[in-house]
Amino acid sequence: MNTNRQWLLAKRPDGMVSRDNFEYTETPIPEAKSGEVLVRNLYLSFDPTQRGWMVDRESYLPPVAIGAPMRAGSIGQVVTSEHADFEAGDLVQTTGGWQDFVIAAPEQGPMGLTKLPVGVTPEMMLSVLGITGLTAYFGLLDLGNPKPGETVLVSGAAGATGSVAGQIAKIKGCRVVGIAGGPEKCQWLKQEVGFDEVIDYKNENVDVRIAETCPNKFDIFFDNVGGDILEAALNHMNMKARIVMCGGISGYNATEPVPGPANLMNLITLRARMEGFIVLDYMPRAGEAIVELLGWISEGQLKYQIDLQEGFDQIPDTLQRLFTGQNLGKQLLKIAEPF
Amino acid sequence: MNTNRQWLLAKRPDGMVSRDNFEYTETPIPEAKSGEVLVRNLYLSFDPTQRGWMVDRESYLPPVAIGAPMRAGSIGQVVTSEHADFEAGDLVQTTGGWQDFVIAAPEQGPMGLTKLPVGVTPEMMLSVLGITGLTAYFGLLDLGNPKPGETVLVSGAAGATGSVAGQIAKIKGCRVVGIAGGPEKCQWLKQEVGFDEVIDYKNENVDVRIAETCPNKFDIFFDNVGGDILEAALNHMNMKARIVMCGGISGYNATEPVPGPANLMNLITLRARMEGFIVLDYMPRAGEAIVELLGWISEGQLKYQIDLQEGFDQIPDTLQRLFTGQNLGKQLLKIAEPF
Repeated sequence: MNTNRQWLLAKRPDGMVSRDNFEYTETPIPEAKSGEVLVRNLYLSFDPTQRGWMVDRESYLPPVAIGAPMRAGSIGQVVTSEHADFEAGDLVQTTGGWQDFVIAAPEQGPMGLTKLPVGVTPEMMLSVLGITGLTAYFGLLDLGNPKPGETVLVSGAAGATGSVAGQIAKIKGCRVVGIAGGPEKCQWLKQEVGFDEVIDYKNENVDVRIAETCPNKFDIFFDNVGGDILEAALNHMNMKARIVMCGGISGYNATEPVPGPANLMNLITLRARMEGFIVLDYMPRAGEAIVELLGWISEGQLKYQIDLQEGFDQIPDTLQRLFTGQNLGKQLLKIAEPF
Repeated sequence: MNTNRQWLLAKRPDGMVSRDNFEYTETPIPEAKSGEVLVRNLYLSFDPTQRGWMVDRESYLPPVAIGAPMRAGSIGQVVTSEHADFEAGDLVQTTGGWQDFVIAAPEQGPMGLTKLPVGVTPEMMLSVLGITGLTAYFGLLDLGNPKPGETVLVSGAAGATGSVAGQIAKIKGCRVVGIAGGPEKCQWLKQEVGFDEVIDYKNENVDVRIAETCPNKFDIFFDNVGGDILEAALNHMNMKARIVMCGGISGYNATEPVPGPANLMNLITLRARMEGFIVLDYMPRAGEAIVELLGWISEGQLKYQIDLQEGFDQIPDTLQRLFTGQNLGKQLLKIAEPF
């Protein structure tokens, strides 16, 4: 291969993101300068937050420029290295983007450039030990502060972040109720992952079912969804409840502003808190999280699921899977084999 | 006087509270039993939260029952005492309700029964040193945690709570911007109270004016209003902003649920927090607050304003003044002179 295949952001989305927002192109393979490495991407990570990066508005990262390769986390392999800490063949994590090759350096881009720890697979590094797992870990523990015996409600519970957040809550001695879409996801959560109760938002009345499954209300709501599900949840808070605002996928593809919950003032009477966070702030503490997560995995206390697609041409469609709820577990796509 | 005049809650409000929600009656003067005192109410306190007490729904206090005297904080004078700590003539604070006489005891009702400290007037005790002042004190300091140089935005800024919150923020070295209704309130805040900037929400575009008056955005929003003003504010948060949810007066008389802010997800990208509180939780710490507030008053650093109405027949209309924004400062009503 002597070209760099790329999917560029061609136009900003209005409503549901689609293949039309991107444009395929081929460019020369770039060359690493001193202090840099040339990485070949093997696995791309798909995350709901990518939808936000496509919009031209100030956020925690600058928007992807029109005509630039779409931003994405990735696992790749070093092809050539001009950096003393890396050599050809190393498996690395970086912000590879939707392309075959990327120039990377440790201090460059939101994810920098790090070697995979020994024994950690690319699938693990892009899921339970990566952004989604760390998001669950720091969001639940730092903002949620779960105590044994408390009830933890999780939306987007079958997702890569939600499923890990719920399992960490179980490990911390909490009762865990998950909200997910469809019987397959709900069954997986209850029978394999070990959630105490599940709510199928596609087939059940969420408000009624939270009341049924949380007889003592909830102390923590780990929310990935926002919208109607957040509003339903706000009816069932315990005193001093903590709402960990991780995401709002229900609104990411909206064309009009989506009204917020009409019952927000319940936060006052119940002395409750809603708090947002961005996992990138916690990167200096990633090491402690990875050690603990690895321990739980090896003890069989923490399960994770990968939804692995294949093929460079499938990249745009794979992003859409997140917003239609098709993915079961962390959405990845493989675009090359290691050499 | 040998009857106890009362205004009873006659029917629950649907929309704006009015005189029709209450019924005037006269009953015999009650008698204090052992451990109790008979209090004659002199001053009644009017607070936006009373609107919530009229609704039949679970909250931080039980709803006022239909046919019961409307609940209200009050300053009164002990008429007869069957409690060793009180004697006839003592000026006391209690939850007197909309009536001439009430039976009170230290452990009874949300406010209990406390003597006014020496040198503290009823007006001070029901405003800057009372529920509204303590709400400002604990909400701003405990939830807001202001640091010198930060920008603090206050809605309902000319109100009894908002004006004190803003002044405490000034004392703590913050830049303070207030949102209030009408030129009279705005002028008072800027020229007499010492706010740095004011926004007249009745005559100005709040979103535009927050941008203009908060060039560095805000670090704390002390919100008494909710609704559109909250939504506008959420566009101008600094990183790690704290939104102190004190009240939502814009929605208290709504007949339909009012949608929440469409931009709530800004809390995520800015790692910001919204938190509610009820001042009754802080009553064990009231002493420390009163000492500090009194110090600031005596040093001329803390101003307060009383809107004093008179006459027992004016009680229902005086409550309405809060929701039409007629009051300038803490709304009180005097129903009797001390003997």
